[in-house]
Amino acid sequence: MKIGAKVWAIAEGYIPSYSSGPQPEMLSHETACILNTNEVDAEIDLTLYFKDREPAGPYKIRVGARRTFHLRFNNLTDPEKVPLGTDYSSVFVSNVPVVVQHTRLDSRQSANALLSTIAYSQP
Amino acid sequence: MKIGAKVWAIAEGYIPSYSSGPQPEMLSHETACILNTNEVDAEIDLTLYFKDREPAGPYKIRVGARRTFHLRFNNLTDPEKVPLGTDYSSVFVSNVPVVVQHTRLDSRQSANALLSTIAYSQP
Amino acid sequence: MKIGAKVWAIAEGYIPSYSSGPQPEMLSHETACILNTNEVDAEIDLTLYFKDREPAGPYKIRVGARRTFHLRFNNLTDPEKVPLGTDYSSVFVSNVPVVVQHTRLDSRQSANALLSTIAYSQP
Amino acid sequence: MKIGAKVWAIAEGYIPSYSSGPQPEMLSHETACILNTNEVDAEIDLTLYFKDREPAGPYKIRVGARRTFHLRFNNLTDPEKVPLGTDYSSVFVSNVPVVVQHTRLDSRQSANALLSTIAYSQP
Repeated sequence: MKIGAKVWAIAEGYIPSYSSGPQPEMLSHETACILNTNEVDAEIDLTLYFKDREPAGPYKIRVGARRTFHLRFNNLTDPEKVPLGTDYSSVFVSNVPVVVQHTRLDSRQSANALLSTIAYSQP
Repeated sequence: MKIGAKVWAIAEGYIPSYSSGPQPEMLSHETACILNTNEVDAEIDLTLYFKDREPAGPYKIRVGARRTFHLRFNNLTDPEKVPLGTDYSSVFVSNVPVVVQHTRLDSRQSANALLSTIAYSQP
Repeated sequence: MKIGAKVWAIAEGYIPSYSSGPQPEMLSHETACILNTNEVDAEIDLTLYFKDREPAGPYKIRVGARRTFHLRFNNLTDPEKVPLGTDYSSVFVSNVPVVVQHTRLDSRQSANALLSTIAYSQP
Repeated sequence: MKIGAKVWAIAEGYIPSYSSGPQPEMLSHETACILNTNEVDAEIDLTLYFKDREPAGPYKIRVGARRTFHLRFNNLTDPEKVPLGTDYSSVFVSNVPVVVQHTRLDSRQSANALLSTIAYSQP
């Protein structure tokens, strides 16, 4: 069964520039959770959009067959790191249908805040 | 009136490995809220996907006719328990249309954090 | 311009049974935000679904033309009040297209938690 | 590649009337994140709906080609400011497809709360 869509967008992106609490668990982070239910690996091109410069990417992401991958934007390095404390958006283009969900842990304060939402899938 | 879809996916799943506060109310938990507005029971197969192993399941879930069921992933035991502190995704396949929403209470800290999002429904 | 859909569902519902902080602003509450962009009033039938009893309702809700209404489930009384500390789901059926979003403020602790998600609209 | 839709609605809107913590970073705010992946600028008309008065707007918003813009409702002034502590909804009509996501930081308390959800896109 093929579940998902090939094109996804997350309009909201922001990695807080500082954290509190034990790390890496309580490190402020921004995550894209990607589910690949297919019998083949998913090859995904990720592009980041910014407020006042040209887009970055594509970042190459592979999610194994019948696997889920919780991508931490903090960990992206190639072709460049994601700047902290900066607004961005992200677009995922996959060769097979996947499902993408967006989550942030904001640990700038001693009391963490969490948000999550399904990403936008192009019909 | 038939409301919902037969196939749903939640890309993000994570049960924190510890909690604070009075239990069971403030126990860290991950919930899938399932609404069945049909005049017949919904029979649902739930499959869990992981980062580095084959999927688990199917877990068999029944939601009564004209009922809602708030499934706590913490309570799943058959065919196996859901590991704590581990990323996973979930896929629901129902014999009748249902509506699925995802919620987490994270009580690792004294101040709880909440998230919720509609799941992805396959068109 | 007609924006929205006539049938909406919120699978997750739960009004915490206690609160902390100044009221009514910081009272624990569950809200359905309803937007009616039409040139006529929206007449909405709301039905609540539970885990172990028959549904309640319909509750009759009117949202004026070109108006928004943030419905607090705490305030529903006719035909019956919504029980606290109990899981429920809700279904909205409107005579004209509307947009529905779900929000909860959980103030059981001194540090509030917030969640929000777009409801499920029947295509 | 054209990603998104031309008409979006956020049913829930509310800018808390006070804040705590360092500003502007921890100022209570309500944001609409708008992604424009097109090769041309997006020209957007934003209209706000209220509980007990006629709508406000249109506010004119421009998002550059291949850019993202995180609109803070707090900063809108023309044709009028957005009142604090008041429920509202928002509708976006764009000349090209965009993606809209809704986020709020509520810093009325020392421990912030965050919410986010994808907006409703008109099919």
